[in-house]
Amino acid sequence: MENLQELLDEACNRARPLVREGRVASYIPELAKADPSLIGIAVHTVEGETVQSGHAAHPFTLQSISKLFSLAALMRFRGPTGALDGMPCEPSGDAFHSIVRLEEEAGHPRNPLINAGAILVSSRLPGGDPKEIAGTVGELLASVLDAPVPVDAQVYASESATGYRNRALANYMQHFGLLENAELACEAYFRQCALTLDAKDLARAGLFLAGNGTDPMSGAPILDPQCTRSILALMSMCGLYDQVGQFALTVGLPAKSAVSGGILTIVPGRMAIATYGAALGPKGNSVAGVAMLQFLSDALDLSLFG
Amino acid sequence: MENLQELLDEACNRARPLVREGRVASYIPELAKADPSLIGIAVHTVEGETVQSGHAAHPFTLQSISKLFSLAALMRFRGPTGALDGMPCEPSGDAFHSIVRLEEEAGHPRNPLINAGAILVSSRLPGGDPKEIAGTVGELLASVLDAPVPVDAQVYASESATGYRNRALANYMQHFGLLENAELACEAYFRQCALTLDAKDLARAGLFLAGNGTDPMSGAPILDPQCTRSILALMSMCGLYDQVGQFALTVGLPAKSAVSGGILTIVPGRMAIATYGAALGPKGNSVAGVAMLQFLSDALDLSLFG
Amino acid sequence: MENLQELLDEACNRARPLVREGRVASYIPELAKADPSLIGIAVHTVEGETVQSGHAAHPFTLQSISKLFSLAALMRFRGPTGALDGMPCEPSGDAFHSIVRLEEEAGHPRNPLINAGAILVSSRLPGGDPKEIAGTVGELLASVLDAPVPVDAQVYASESATGYRNRALANYMQHFGLLENAELACEAYFRQCALTLDAKDLARAGLFLAGNGTDPMSGAPILDPQCTRSILALMSMCGLYDQVGQFALTVGLPAKSAVSGGILTIVPGRMAIATYGAALGPKGNSVAGVAMLQFLSDALDLSLFG
Amino acid sequence: MENLQELLDEACNRARPLVREGRVASYIPELAKADPSLIGIAVHTVEGETVQSGHAAHPFTLQSISKLFSLAALMRFRGPTGALDGMPCEPSGDAFHSIVRLEEEAGHPRNPLINAGAILVSSRLPGGDPKEIAGTVGELLASVLDAPVPVDAQVYASESATGYRNRALANYMQHFGLLENAELACEAYFRQCALTLDAKDLARAGLFLAGNGTDPMSGAPILDPQCTRSILALMSMCGLYDQVGQFALTVGLPAKSAVSGGILTIVPGRMAIATYGAALGPKGNSVAGVAMLQFLSDALDLSLFG
Repeated sequence: MENLQELLDEACNRARPLVREGRVASYIPELAKADPSLIGIAVHTVEGETVQSGHAAHPFTLQSISKLFSLAALMRFRGPTGALDGMPCEPSGDAFHSIVRLEEEAGHPRNPLINAGAILVSSRLPGGDPKEIAGTVGELLASVLDAPVPVDAQVYASESATGYRNRALANYMQHFGLLENAELACEAYFRQCALTLDAKDLARAGLFLAGNGTDPMSGAPILDPQCTRSILALMSMCGLYDQVGQFALTVGLPAKSAVSGGILTIVPGRMAIATYGAALGPKGNSVAGVAMLQFLSDALDLSLFG
Repeated sequence: MENLQELLDEACNRARPLVREGRVASYIPELAKADPSLIGIAVHTVEGETVQSGHAAHPFTLQSISKLFSLAALMRFRGPTGALDGMPCEPSGDAFHSIVRLEEEAGHPRNPLINAGAILVSSRLPGGDPKEIAGTVGELLASVLDAPVPVDAQVYASESATGYRNRALANYMQHFGLLENAELACEAYFRQCALTLDAKDLARAGLFLAGNGTDPMSGAPILDPQCTRSILALMSMCGLYDQVGQFALTVGLPAKSAVSGGILTIVPGRMAIATYGAALGPKGNSVAGVAMLQFLSDALDLSLFG
Repeated sequence: MENLQELLDEACNRARPLVREGRVASYIPELAKADPSLIGIAVHTVEGETVQSGHAAHPFTLQSISKLFSLAALMRFRGPTGALDGMPCEPSGDAFHSIVRLEEEAGHPRNPLINAGAILVSSRLPGGDPKEIAGTVGELLASVLDAPVPVDAQVYASESATGYRNRALANYMQHFGLLENAELACEAYFRQCALTLDAKDLARAGLFLAGNGTDPMSGAPILDPQCTRSILALMSMCGLYDQVGQFALTVGLPAKSAVSGGILTIVPGRMAIATYGAALGPKGNSVAGVAMLQFLSDALDLSLFG
Repeated sequence: MENLQELLDEACNRARPLVREGRVASYIPELAKADPSLIGIAVHTVEGETVQSGHAAHPFTLQSISKLFSLAALMRFRGPTGALDGMPCEPSGDAFHSIVRLEEEAGHPRNPLINAGAILVSSRLPGGDPKEIAGTVGELLASVLDAPVPVDAQVYASESATGYRNRALANYMQHFGLLENAELACEAYFRQCALTLDAKDLARAGLFLAGNGTDPMSGAPILDPQCTRSILALMSMCGLYDQVGQFALTVGLPAKSAVSGGILTIVPGRMAIATYGAALGPKGNSVAGVAMLQFLSDALDLSLFG
């Protein structure tokens, strides 16, 4: 689809000047080294078409986007209900690392896409050490991509050396008996956050979410449809931090962003879109990424809301 | 579509026993008089088909569902941006009547579907007294239905006599300069909440939300598409109080519920569904309504999330 | 006591340069007109000595200091338990006008010295209109001073025209059934806040709090000792907004401040001290007043804590 | 003073039946083993008189009372300002283990008598391991008592094995850079909490707080007067959790309670009082202890508030 290529190029071109309005994440020292001028986008349709533009082959760590895949991995072991046990799955209205609601709600994270929830998910994955647990997430990705997915050791080390806010969340949940080893859960979570892909591979890896749980390329069943439906619903309400509402109004698609600058967006039944751009707006989402997605949603009439 | 009639009958039959698990709202004295055994459902498709089952002709006051139509009415005057000015349009994570976030956020309601936001919307509608302001909302409904929409005077009086929590919200916003006459805004809001329809007419009145802003029956343009897209996005994130997440996971459609027991649900591009059932679950949503919608979403594969 | 005169003069002289570090309250327009260069202090001992320095005869509205006298007036009708009914009498840790804790605690104010609590106290005073209710407070003062205490009509009007945050608190309490007429309670409270005294008379009027409830000059019983003990305990924990802790560390005496710039401080069994200075620090307390009190507490070894 | 002996006996006798209304703390398993029928009281006056009644020789772990002595120990190294650096020293209005305000206030504990503040104090004490740090606290006590103060190894182990809520607080503060080793600070804090005394020795150990920082028995300077004044002021506002207000109204003295059932109360310039009784009321303070202190305060007219 030549048209799609042109659209992606146009999206990149329009978004490029915006990177000056954002700032690269600095709370993890390693992330601060990213080059904000590199932006890219990749689309993979369920029919197998794959198109990209810009720096779609520039690798970045998955960070919060990994929450989707650890949740998917856990759902394969426990089913959707078991995986989400103890989490009401409601939007939180707070920042991703907030501990306030944990106190109000006896340690129960609102949903699996805020940090507390994702750490709880990781604590439930099989494995006796961080490498093994994060490995379960990496293997899910690798099985779709048919290639190993590396962990960025420096980002992992940087995150582990500074992740005391997440440790606070994990210890809080351990106090309430929701997990048994706060330190292990955090290390596993830090490690899965350092899984590294580029936009092209991320769109490919997420394609099963657009395919009702079946990878449209290989026909392999990854998750049952009820699971993907839950994941997409959670993305639509909790996927972009405190900007999820504005994103719903202007883009209208389930998506999950990361402080590394990536966003994975799903058009159910049609395509997966991955964008990259390390400059973040005030809410922690990629400025270029959001702009490219708005452009594309408008151009292709992708919003779920008409 | 004979099939649809059977489905609605089946939905009613399955949901009927559940009403014993819920409780009629009691915080407004007049609402407490509702008969929880009366449940009904009505569907109106964009092609013009209309099917109903159970007590779809039993009138009820719109309560929170009126927030959709006051917002639509305001958008006709101000456009989507002007109507939503000062509201970040993010999910709140709090109860519909919570004042906590107003304090944190200098009086700004999170979105127009919580009480504070809806009162702010009403304060912006034209009109010098409650009757005139609520009349603007009633006229929008009447223009689609081609019939006047009455106000239940007793419910209005009951709400006005007890609505001190809403008055607190309104005075709080007046303190921050967001509105100029807290008492007027509240009375207008109480009055619009007492607008009365049955499920059949509610589905008909909401059909333009499924039609990208155009009423599919008459072809009349009610709102521009960007406005309906915003309203549907807000419904999907903020339409069912603290149950909006579970509803997204299990039904996957934008909807707005009311303590009177009604729910208006939109399938973009396809149909509007209105349900009634006064027995509410612990989160304030109709037990029978949610059950009927789950059944119908599963049976017709309506979820936006695959 | 010549010595005391010298100390007060010295206190004034040292505090005078500090007024440039503070700002006159502006949230009530009339208060913004105060001249921050006027500062004064007056001491009245239980033995009858009265000493003053600076502008101790400059009148100001009592504002929050009136909370002490409305509480005292109510205790005369209801006793300490009845007057404090429904208020746990714990420090709040929040700003004086915060509504957050009201939501958490079903409308119950933490204590009678935050705004919500004081409005609740006023709602319980006898009287059918604001003039009558605030009159009960004024009469208590007048009976000690043997002179009428005027209401500043302009300040009252200014406060009534802008007091929507207090109206929010009152409506919130009415929702929870703690009071029956939010508007009346607010107006009475606004009116009592506009009662006007100078530092000299304020020290005289508060002397019964240093005398275990008996006015040491006239021997008249104003309150029973258990009541004054409660009031002093509340002042020590809740009397200076978010600066009460620092004040306890450095001054060590029960006191109540007001945004108009006054502070009434009690040395149990010994004296009442009133200070004036309209320039407020970041926590809303008179910069000069706090400085004069620190100086005097140090010089005379007044701290209750050794 | 025969009279005082009779009063203490009477206090014990009156309080004994109340223990059935309380419950032994259970959140640390070892504490749950305490016998709630054992209650005792000891008074040590600055003149050297020492009187006791009931089980005043029954040992218990200091728990939160240790916060006073770690703070005193730190003040000896850093002075009052340095010791309290980064803590506004205001009452918190929240539960002792609450993390909410830490989030609002960038990790800064409100005061050194809530858990977060006490952990921060311990993190600032000299020492490279928990034993050494807690040892500094134990030595302060030992130097006054002229006898070693043991650590209850089982209580320490129990606390360390379950203290995840405190670890959450410590990690949270480490995130904000307030301390450098959350784990070490917590272990030191758990260990100091397990320091063990009986009521008789606790009254003796705390006597310097009644003596303006000088131990009245030995004449040894323990702390400078400004430090003890700060500690007493903090006790008066933050010493009994969410019951500090009621305690101020009814007892009117600075005190610090512990979940083990002890309370240390200071009458400035006159005496130290220690009570024991493991049955706690709903706010976490010893039921018998509070009752004995009310009785004694009334009988001897000890309230600071007249």
